Amino acid sequence: MAGNTFGKAFKVTTWGESHGTGVGAVIDGCPPGIVLDLEDLQNEMARRKPGQGGASTTRKEPDKLEIMSGVFTLPGEEMPRTTGTPISLVIYNKDAHSKSYDHLRDIFRPGHGDITYMAKYGLRDHRGGGRSSARETAARVAAGAIAKQVLASFDMDVCAYTVALGGIRAEKRNLGEITKNAYYCPDKVAAKKMDERIKQVRSNGDTVGGIVEIVAQCPPGLGEPVFDKLEAELAHGLMSIGAVKGVEIGAGFAVADMLGSENNDVITPEGYASNNAGGILAGISNGEQLVIRVAIKPIPSIAKEQHTVNLRNEEVSLKIGGRHDISAIPRVIPVCEAMVRLTLVDHLLRHLGPYEEEEY
Amino acid sequence: MAGNTFGKAFKVTTWGESHGTGVGAVIDGCPPGIVLDLEDLQNEMARRKPGQGGASTTRKEPDKLEIMSGVFTLPGEEMPRTTGTPISLVIYNKDAHSKSYDHLRDIFRPGHGDITYMAKYGLRDHRGGGRSSARETAARVAAGAIAKQVLASFDMDVCAYTVALGGIRAEKRNLGEITKNAYYCPDKVAAKKMDERIKQVRSNGDTVGGIVEIVAQCPPGLGEPVFDKLEAELAHGLMSIGAVKGVEIGAGFAVADMLGSENNDVITPEGYASNNAGGILAGISNGEQLVIRVAIKPIPSIAKEQHTVNLRNEEVSLKIGGRHDISAIPRVIPVCEAMVRLTLVDHLLRHLGPYEEEEY
Amino acid sequence: MAGNTFGKAFKVTTWGESHGTGVGAVIDGCPPGIVLDLEDLQNEMARRKPGQGGASTTRKEPDKLEIMSGVFTLPGEEMPRTTGTPISLVIYNKDAHSKSYDHLRDIFRPGHGDITYMAKYGLRDHRGGGRSSARETAARVAAGAIAKQVLASFDMDVCAYTVALGGIRAEKRNLGEITKNAYYCPDKVAAKKMDERIKQVRSNGDTVGGIVEIVAQCPPGLGEPVFDKLEAELAHGLMSIGAVKGVEIGAGFAVADMLGSENNDVITPEGYASNNAGGILAGISNGEQLVIRVAIKPIPSIAKEQHTVNLRNEEVSLKIGGRHDISAIPRVIPVCEAMVRLTLVDHLLRHLGPYEEEEY
Amino acid sequence: MAGNTFGKAFKVTTWGESHGTGVGAVIDGCPPGIVLDLEDLQNEMARRKPGQGGASTTRKEPDKLEIMSGVFTLPGEEMPRTTGTPISLVIYNKDAHSKSYDHLRDIFRPGHGDITYMAKYGLRDHRGGGRSSARETAARVAAGAIAKQVLASFDMDVCAYTVALGGIRAEKRNLGEITKNAYYCPDKVAAKKMDERIKQVRSNGDTVGGIVEIVAQCPPGLGEPVFDKLEAELAHGLMSIGAVKGVEIGAGFAVADMLGSENNDVITPEGYASNNAGGILAGISNGEQLVIRVAIKPIPSIAKEQHTVNLRNEEVSLKIGGRHDISAIPRVIPVCEAMVRLTLVDHLLRHLGPYEEEEY
Repeated sequence: MAGNTFGKAFKVTTWGESHGTGVGAVIDGCPPGIVLDLEDLQNEMARRKPGQGGASTTRKEPDKLEIMSGVFTLPGEEMPRTTGTPISLVIYNKDAHSKSYDHLRDIFRPGHGDITYMAKYGLRDHRGGGRSSARETAARVAAGAIAKQVLASFDMDVCAYTVALGGIRAEKRNLGEITKNAYYCPDKVAAKKMDERIKQVRSNGDTVGGIVEIVAQCPPGLGEPVFDKLEAELAHGLMSIGAVKGVEIGAGFAVADMLGSENNDVITPEGYASNNAGGILAGISNGEQLVIRVAIKPIPSIAKEQHTVNLRNEEVSLKIGGRHDISAIPRVIPVCEAMVRLTLVDHLLRHLGPYEEEEY
Repeated sequence: MAGNTFGKAFKVTTWGESHGTGVGAVIDGCPPGIVLDLEDLQNEMARRKPGQGGASTTRKEPDKLEIMSGVFTLPGEEMPRTTGTPISLVIYNKDAHSKSYDHLRDIFRPGHGDITYMAKYGLRDHRGGGRSSARETAARVAAGAIAKQVLASFDMDVCAYTVALGGIRAEKRNLGEITKNAYYCPDKVAAKKMDERIKQVRSNGDTVGGIVEIVAQCPPGLGEPVFDKLEAELAHGLMSIGAVKGVEIGAGFAVADMLGSENNDVITPEGYASNNAGGILAGISNGEQLVIRVAIKPIPSIAKEQHTVNLRNEEVSLKIGGRHDISAIPRVIPVCEAMVRLTLVDHLLRHLGPYEEEEY
Repeated sequence: MAGNTFGKAFKVTTWGESHGTGVGAVIDGCPPGIVLDLEDLQNEMARRKPGQGGASTTRKEPDKLEIMSGVFTLPGEEMPRTTGTPISLVIYNKDAHSKSYDHLRDIFRPGHGDITYMAKYGLRDHRGGGRSSARETAARVAAGAIAKQVLASFDMDVCAYTVALGGIRAEKRNLGEITKNAYYCPDKVAAKKMDERIKQVRSNGDTVGGIVEIVAQCPPGLGEPVFDKLEAELAHGLMSIGAVKGVEIGAGFAVADMLGSENNDVITPEGYASNNAGGILAGISNGEQLVIRVAIKPIPSIAKEQHTVNLRNEEVSLKIGGRHDISAIPRVIPVCEAMVRLTLVDHLLRHLGPYEEEEY
Repeated sequence: MAGNTFGKAFKVTTWGESHGTGVGAVIDGCPPGIVLDLEDLQNEMARRKPGQGGASTTRKEPDKLEIMSGVFTLPGEEMPRTTGTPISLVIYNKDAHSKSYDHLRDIFRPGHGDITYMAKYGLRDHRGGGRSSARETAARVAAGAIAKQVLASFDMDVCAYTVALGGIRAEKRNLGEITKNAYYCPDKVAAKKMDERIKQVRSNGDTVGGIVEIVAQCPPGLGEPVFDKLEAELAHGLMSIGAVKGVEIGAGFAVADMLGSENNDVITPEGYASNNAGGILAGISNGEQLVIRVAIKPIPSIAKEQHTVNLRNEEVSLKIGGRHDISAIPRVIPVCEAMVRLTLVDHLLRHLGPYEEEEY
């Protein structure tokens, strides 16, 4: 049983490889009647595409999103609406340099899925990492952009930003700053240091990790205990991003050192006095802001020489040239947002409110 | 769409509330022909039951596991075998003091799901937390104990232990120690400090959090990219435990400060030179030990006075007496093991190996 | 991947064998707040239990339904309400004569699943057919009885009756008659002939088949094209009843001989002029009465001598004594109703209506 | 929860509308390493495409199948292999005359889903029936053609043919005949009468129904009781074809008039003496040939004048010109085969054989 579908009500199935025809997704379960703003969808794509500031690859992909089904423009309207039938979307690959991967056909790059894909499937498309390439996340961002428009109808929104990069921490959460620097960092001073750090690391042929924080407005009542708790599904979605090695909600790992009396969020008639819970109690949103952080590992494709093995388990050394990012940040930011959006819209549609006879 | 089922091939559905008839589970998809060692199953139950050392409640529950279907003892055999049909199991509630919860009928305890269950469902069984009680995890441990016996046939095993409690860190990983102290701590010296810390916190009417680490032997090839990656499903399962607020794999959040050249695990003809990946590459196990850590929040039921609101959103104050644990550790340890076991056996059964014609 | 769960929103998982502890079900996804009339639930159980008129076994089972979770009686109320958490229900086996099956341990009864269960699972619980026994349907009827009460809130109801038995056809559809004879036959004259036919067949040590028709009131808009069309899911549910060998909707197999101009139901401002469609167009209910018929095969356990093989593939002959029905009718009638109810309540909860912004 | 996915292990999600960009499918769960014969895939498409003999439309669609992902041609091989990742396939629409549907924008055609799609979704793509068009089945046939190649590795095959059309019955099952006439009829004489009947009906501006029989070779052990029995899933898949109004297995509706002693298939050391069961006992294949029949309704688009209503519920009359088939037969034949193939390959992959320790 393969696992290329995310969600149970708003089901997103992605397909595609780095150097094939393209990547795409089918969304089954999008509510009917939602007006799609195609320009906004394309803007979301632009945030993930290659060439985003100092840390990015130079691969040129227009990443034009094409919708092949599930929408219809009603007479007299200008923008298409969803029809309730499956939305098929595709982003064609344009700038794939497959030849430059020929020397990697038999070599397992450290930190990549080359060796595990071979172990699992017995063969693999080695070009650009094939299915394990981060290019697959373009399809997630596209589906997430549609989810964003569904959520907007419920006044829900998601925002992700960088709180650590290459050892530099953001001390402030000034969200007005995040579109003003290449790292989506909410701390102007930290952003400047991050830029310097990235330049230094690039010149060393190395890469860096970081931490992304995601916040979201969410009404109370979402989440499906006991296994599909909201935090469990958020963790599932975010941990399915290749670069993510850790997920925490609210106070997260800091709870290990807290007392119950410190960690409990006091409830007052005006609301919660704190938000250590990160907006979720017992698997169900409590109406406070959702707060999630994910750990982003350094890009494994480094220019420095590395030791590894080939298909015949012989030792070989490897320098990865190509056009690679120095960090998954900032391009992973819209992917994090997409996974949170997909999780929230799925739970919005899964939620069965208190039963009312007149509801049908 | 409710969410009380875990797994897609080895499907476990739990049911039950803290003060109802009992808690139970139905396992659909257990392979046929597996001999069940009932004594071992009961031993696993004993590890989660109340009264586990210094941090535990005094509620007395025998937690006897009864299997109602799906097994059959063949003529001439002593132990039952699974038949491939659904295994229904139940653990009856024996020592539920429902009366002692009467005063909580209209009050939302801080840090608990009282307020969110009411928001979601419009009514709730307030007795002992109802469905949101940690008592539900007895059913998970029971199902996990069966999963353990399936995994044993594949030489797979899972082990969890405490690496932090109340601010005390284990510096060593001496797994021989973990059954010798009440906290399943692999560091003898730290375990002693933890015991002192627990006593102090108890006398203050407070509770503490900690960190649990889980390791597992796992063959290469398990995990279903791109959404049901092994780490994503592990995170899903573990984050669905009420006390867990964070999950990390391998180097985890430490990757944020690492360089690519540090984080990449060099592959040699003899195996991996390090295990920052925690045994998973691109969502698929690589044959190394799985290493996962989870952050455990302090038990929210504290003896200290707290402020909160009631059903009518009026401010009230609250002191929780009852029979509560000081920390979810150590009783959450077998629950963590159970969720990892359930995830692994599910992926074992989901895995489709390289295609071979003669396989049928 | 086993298949003991029915439904995607109102998910029913059954468990249990003929001669084990009992049979039961877990319902995950029942809406919260629904008042359960326990007496009515028990009445539904009574309709399926052994000893229903001339065609039935003499096995005595009280078939008392016990609900173990998922309900809570609010202060000041007399009847329990669903809480939105899993409903676990059990019907214990009381009158199982396992010894009388000892001689069948190694013999494959014709027309039964003995031989296929052994082929599939490699071992089997031979007592009373084990999991393949019709006793499992008691759990379906119990879950269906709860579904009935959810449907009642939406003014939906389901009714099944016998239109053929042992070669006798009902010519009339006088639904007032169906509770007045032992065969739930809507034709008084036919019912009398059926009774004579059953007596004759019983004296010959043989059994008979028949046809059950099911009608239901259903609002327009239910059904999920293109694969989970309403008729497809109804067929799935009904064909999963052991005795059913055919399913047809509306005009059914008669369409093979009809012209398009005859079969099309003319639409008028007052509604449809006919109902050849059986209430479903393109997989979605159209507001007309649902009309479904299922073919019921003769009970395979016959008193006449039969030839078959044993585990060692040796020819043996067999006379089945025991306490068996002459026909699955009438006891299969409430099972048919249950499967239609479960399908309808599932689709009611799956249906996403035209999108309205204020709906949340 | 929408329903555009079929299968649980070999999951096929279709998308697309009659007059949009095209129709397509994503297959998630195809085993890796299977060689795909693209020419054979295209041949399967040709059997469903418009212009198949006397009963077909004159719409010209090349129905070229394009595979966009999930396959890779290994060095030194000529044909691509599946990689275990999602297979995305598309068939572009070429000859869609959307304008000719403008007059139907506000009119509900009798026998079609126009009125129910509007009831369910609140808006619809009226062009050519939109999503409810039989054009969607091109994606099913494409996915089924891939399933055929997986099944071939297990020596499994499926064959469908016409046993009734417009009131004419095939008396013989001479399978050598079915490719020699336009109706896939295994009875030469009947085929000739069918041709005459079709001509006569066409001249009257009317359409006809029929019956398709499907047979398949299947090893014992497939099917997942108690709800996902093989016959239940076959019925689900076949009844999800728009034209199908009834499904029967083996003796089917004829069992209503049979005695148990007639209907039971005697088991001998050499195999079954008859096949009234149609190859399935208690939901599991028994190794005999699967035999299924489906009732095909007359095409609802008729040239004769019909009465119906428009969006404002006003009475209107309607003559459907356009390029429509006289019968769904023969084009529905490969669709029936596709649904049976998809069901069988899904169950092949779902089946967990008797447990063997060395199996991993």
